[in-house]
Amino acid sequence: MESPHPAGSPAPVLPPLDSDVALLTASLLDIHSVSDHEGPLADVVEATLRALPRLRVERLGDTLVARTDFGLASRVVLAGHLDTVPLPTAPGARGTVPSRWEPPAAVGPSDSDLPADTDLLYGRGATDMKSGVAVQLALAGLMGHDAGPVPARDVTWVFYDHEEVGSELSGLGRVVREAPELLEADFAVLLEPTDGVVEGGCNGTCRYVVTVPGVAAHSGRAWRGVNAVHAAAPLLAALAAYEPATVRVEGLDYREGLNAVRIHGGTAGNVIPDACTVEVNFRFAPDKDLEQAHEHVFSVLATAGVGRDQVAITDESAAARPGLDHPAAAAFVAAVGGTPQPKYGWTDVARFSALGVPAVNFGPGDALLAHTDEEHVSAGAIRDCLAALTRWLLPGA
Amino acid sequence: MESPHPAGSPAPVLPPLDSDVALLTASLLDIHSVSDHEGPLADVVEATLRALPRLRVERLGDTLVARTDFGLASRVVLAGHLDTVPLPTAPGARGTVPSRWEPPAAVGPSDSDLPADTDLLYGRGATDMKSGVAVQLALAGLMGHDAGPVPARDVTWVFYDHEEVGSELSGLGRVVREAPELLEADFAVLLEPTDGVVEGGCNGTCRYVVTVPGVAAHSGRAWRGVNAVHAAAPLLAALAAYEPATVRVEGLDYREGLNAVRIHGGTAGNVIPDACTVEVNFRFAPDKDLEQAHEHVFSVLATAGVGRDQVAITDESAAARPGLDHPAAAAFVAAVGGTPQPKYGWTDVARFSALGVPAVNFGPGDALLAHTDEEHVSAGAIRDCLAALTRWLLPGA
Repeated sequence: MESPHPAGSPAPVLPPLDSDVALLTASLLDIHSVSDHEGPLADVVEATLRALPRLRVERLGDTLVARTDFGLASRVVLAGHLDTVPLPTAPGARGTVPSRWEPPAAVGPSDSDLPADTDLLYGRGATDMKSGVAVQLALAGLMGHDAGPVPARDVTWVFYDHEEVGSELSGLGRVVREAPELLEADFAVLLEPTDGVVEGGCNGTCRYVVTVPGVAAHSGRAWRGVNAVHAAAPLLAALAAYEPATVRVEGLDYREGLNAVRIHGGTAGNVIPDACTVEVNFRFAPDKDLEQAHEHVFSVLATAGVGRDQVAITDESAAARPGLDHPAAAAFVAAVGGTPQPKYGWTDVARFSALGVPAVNFGPGDALLAHTDEEHVSAGAIRDCLAALTRWLLPGA
Repeated sequence: MESPHPAGSPAPVLPPLDSDVALLTASLLDIHSVSDHEGPLADVVEATLRALPRLRVERLGDTLVARTDFGLASRVVLAGHLDTVPLPTAPGARGTVPSRWEPPAAVGPSDSDLPADTDLLYGRGATDMKSGVAVQLALAGLMGHDAGPVPARDVTWVFYDHEEVGSELSGLGRVVREAPELLEADFAVLLEPTDGVVEGGCNGTCRYVVTVPGVAAHSGRAWRGVNAVHAAAPLLAALAAYEPATVRVEGLDYREGLNAVRIHGGTAGNVIPDACTVEVNFRFAPDKDLEQAHEHVFSVLATAGVGRDQVAITDESAAARPGLDHPAAAAFVAAVGGTPQPKYGWTDVARFSALGVPAVNFGPGDALLAHTDEEHVSAGAIRDCLAALTRWLLPGA
């Protein structure tokens, strides 16, 4: 994909960081940053951070880490990713680049109870997660200049690349491998969209490919073969009958799920299939580590006669405990308000959790709108998120 | 595909029709005739037939029809197709063009009980079905020249194109549509490979695509969706539990079969599948017409909760009764010997059956070798087939 900011064209600029955070979001949306094309946005963010004298800024690839150094007893991380999923291809889709404002009425009666002064901001990344990045930057602007207030805790900002693609490409993962000391903290907030609710920890996710064998034969002489698709019936029946658990961890209820997400078998309309493959996804609560998750799946598959040797583990991401019993987390929940909820999707809080840093998700926007053609966020939600985090970090401000 | 016989190169020629029929087969194998490229072979066969003064020859496209006109009380058809499936692509495959002879020992100990004088002829079409075409041509040579013996029945030879591809392209189908009077007869023999055994009629075959619906959702929130792959479990269980019938028709036992031949569901590793499609193939005995076959399949699917509106009929080919109770057929079986068997695969006997002409399959070679990389036939089998048909048509010869 060609960069929309080729050499020679004017570099994009952001409004002052003390502008309305919704306008700051719109400026970020207008800088195209689909995964693997984060460079121009990273350049703008880097220049913005380096202009703040209280921050020490490091750049690793297209990931930026900025830290205050007030020598406070506690340090927290505010993290968000700079990349977005690709732009929508459907004609007329509004969740694209550049952004646009719509009055609330434009999205139908279900939004009619929004305050009249709340406008909706459409664009790729509106919820996932440039509104969160805008809140991060606004807080950096607030604390980073020489005359700014001193926060209750030292703060580390992380703006990273390659979150929406293969886990091995993650810019946050690169910092974990190459400079984990930059991430040392007592607590981390990931500004992924949670609709302004604290979502603690996250479910883990593992994938398995189960191969059910058969013996090929001409379908006119089916008795010479063994039908692998028919042989998959007990496996599908076991998955259909499986009752997923809801597991309470540190006061939050994590709903699990065990699902066939893909099935494939057969090569031609006149051949008995000699193999049927079923891809299975297990979403599991943070009371289990990866090994325990695998053992659980193997035990379910065994009830369908599926042996361990028929199963390949193709993907594994550990769950993260919510960590809400940590004092820094408790103070955060008390400051921002609301009732914490479990996070069902896997997010990078798991990387912090693996480093021993309790982490939660807390950001503006509805996660269900992420990646959709109509991705949007309300200006009020962005302002509310900034206000909540300001109450926590600058209680006297 | 480029023709191996471009304009300007010498036209292929056949040996005299009274040569060893195995050598005649080898000459036919050396003329490339993959479906849609039958022209050069049709030209050679046409020239050969037109050189026989007792035959009236018609050409429709690349299909040739030749008839004796002795005014006998009975007429029989000898039919075979000129085309082959594509050449093998595996290095070293012997079922290709040109043909080659191998001693029987070369194919391993299981063939060691072949007579010592039986050589094996490898090549694309060796079994399917240029050895049968060679037998047809040898019989035409025997009866077609001025001094030849007069057969017990008038004979119609059909050599047709496009058998190995879509049914709608069949050269035999073209004759049925455009000049069915050319096919009028009391009985037909299709020289498809049957290992020298009379195979009567054929099973029918129908295909269905069953769509099991679901509702997509993120697999991290599976409870918001309906898993279509899980919902296919009862269908697969019903197919696995189905006990296919063996149906006796006119003394032959037809084994049926109902099988899933393809299954597909799911779009991504983190999405609950919103549809699962299962392609089902029903092979059914000639006691049923197409309508009865469909009704049977619908009734089986209904036991799995599959409604008629979830099923699309994607292919249907009627079965053919063996017709062995017809006097011409009985005389044929008596002359060639052996115990007739049912034909499980669908063949063009069904086209003759639909015209009211009882038809059987009878030809040299093992049908299980057809389309394989190691397609071959024994010289003895070709000679035996010619001898059997000669006993039937020229009982005094």
